[in-house]
Amino acid sequence: MKKLKRSARLVEMTQYLLARPHTLISLTAFADRYQSAKSSISEDLAIIKEVFEEEGLGELHTLAGAAGGVKYIPKMHKGESLSIIKNICRQLEQPERVLPGGYLYMTDMLGIPNLMNDVGRMFATVFADRDIDVIMTVETKGIPLAYATAMFLNLPVVIVRRDNKVTEGSAVSINYVSGSNKRIQTMSLARRALKEQARVLIIDDFMKAGGTVQGMMDLLHEFDATVAGVGVFVESGEVGMDERLLEDYVSLAKLTAVDLKTKQTTVIPGNYFTP
Amino acid sequence: MKKLKRSARLVEMTQYLLARPHTLISLTAFADRYQSAKSSISEDLAIIKEVFEEEGLGELHTLAGAAGGVKYIPKMHKGESLSIIKNICRQLEQPERVLPGGYLYMTDMLGIPNLMNDVGRMFATVFADRDIDVIMTVETKGIPLAYATAMFLNLPVVIVRRDNKVTEGSAVSINYVSGSNKRIQTMSLARRALKEQARVLIIDDFMKAGGTVQGMMDLLHEFDATVAGVGVFVESGEVGMDERLLEDYVSLAKLTAVDLKTKQTTVIPGNYFTP
Repeated sequence: MKKLKRSARLVEMTQYLLARPHTLISLTAFADRYQSAKSSISEDLAIIKEVFEEEGLGELHTLAGAAGGVKYIPKMHKGESLSIIKNICRQLEQPERVLPGGYLYMTDMLGIPNLMNDVGRMFATVFADRDIDVIMTVETKGIPLAYATAMFLNLPVVIVRRDNKVTEGSAVSINYVSGSNKRIQTMSLARRALKEQARVLIIDDFMKAGGTVQGMMDLLHEFDATVAGVGVFVESGEVGMDERLLEDYVSLAKLTAVDLKTKQTTVIPGNYFTP
Repeated sequence: MKKLKRSARLVEMTQYLLARPHTLISLTAFADRYQSAKSSISEDLAIIKEVFEEEGLGELHTLAGAAGGVKYIPKMHKGESLSIIKNICRQLEQPERVLPGGYLYMTDMLGIPNLMNDVGRMFATVFADRDIDVIMTVETKGIPLAYATAMFLNLPVVIVRRDNKVTEGSAVSINYVSGSNKRIQTMSLARRALKEQARVLIIDDFMKAGGTVQGMMDLLHEFDATVAGVGVFVESGEVGMDERLLEDYVSLAKLTAVDLKTKQTTVIPGNYFTP
């Protein structure tokens, strides 16, 4: 790369860091890339750090020493998250979203990349300090949330299938009981999709009693993998405490009431926002 | 926002533009946001434009006049695209990827958000000038590609389901014959997922004869929607010309030979790179 003026270098470094979250970049690499002294690079990073932190984009961690460098950790302030989630709750309360069986239509919202990026940034904030190897979800609607989260955490995604596709090779399948409708269902994961002892963050779009998440946990057990965390976009509060299959999860929104007659629903911020 | 120095403003404007592709931002909005003169904003944009274009990140289109402003159009140079695709081809040729039936295991690669972002940026480059309302794919493996493309084009995504889920409301279903195994299959889309007369970009991970893409086109016909383009990540060249169901598509890679005995495959850059 040709030598840049400071102004151009700031633009270039900003895009470079934004495109590489949770990745350690050595000062030497930057100094070589821009043919600049490390002291100039350090000054640039101080400016970028200040803007990122003021804007609530995330943190720039500087590590000193020979193995030192800089790492961009995307974050979202809780206040901004709450205001975005409150707006999402209002949209989810629209009466035309109530479907037979008390389900809520939210596929349209899951189809908006900007919204998924906001939610992914929230999950990336929640789980920023966990030791995670891979993000797991089950097809279909959890997929955009898992990818958005993975992008900000710089992690790969594995998708559990509800059938066993020929294009996946040999797979491990388990049966599970979906808590909401008590039906026995199957989920499977290609043997080569997950290394043994992997630390896995589970992300899903909706959780009622938690049967699907519990199924994913059982599947992880078959791979000798461990659960590093569970994040759900919307949880249903219409579940008795004794029906709830798991306790340790983070939800961003909570569906507390559905009146099928009046089509009135109440959606409030999830347990992430509980003080 | 408090008044920023030029250096901080450049960092802020860079991240602001990167987060809002294909979105017109008026100079007045920037001037208000940064409490700066439009002339200063214009100078900043000139610096950002130069870096973005030098780095091959995309174009900054400036529109003059009262309705004027600036729009960031993410792009990737064909040379860079080709070198990324050649690397992908080499990975796809690994013998352990050959599955029974001549399928290729590529789920692991579809699970890497950075790789999906590269491919999404390529599709966003190909289709940057088309008039598109929405991006469509069919579950499951096309989903990350569709979202990555949608993010760079600032468009929503709709996912065609292979079954008809209760959580989607009323849906339109069609039967189609998958060209590769001649089986009759069903795909469906929620009625409310697509507005009539929508212009739709179809994105998928793999295409053999094109039966699945043709199925999506038939489904679009039911919605009075039109096809604005078709992009596939990998096409199979192991299809006779008379078997091929569609001609107007863009592929990024092409599987030209699979030897099931020796597990040798040949993957070359797709028709996007054909001169």
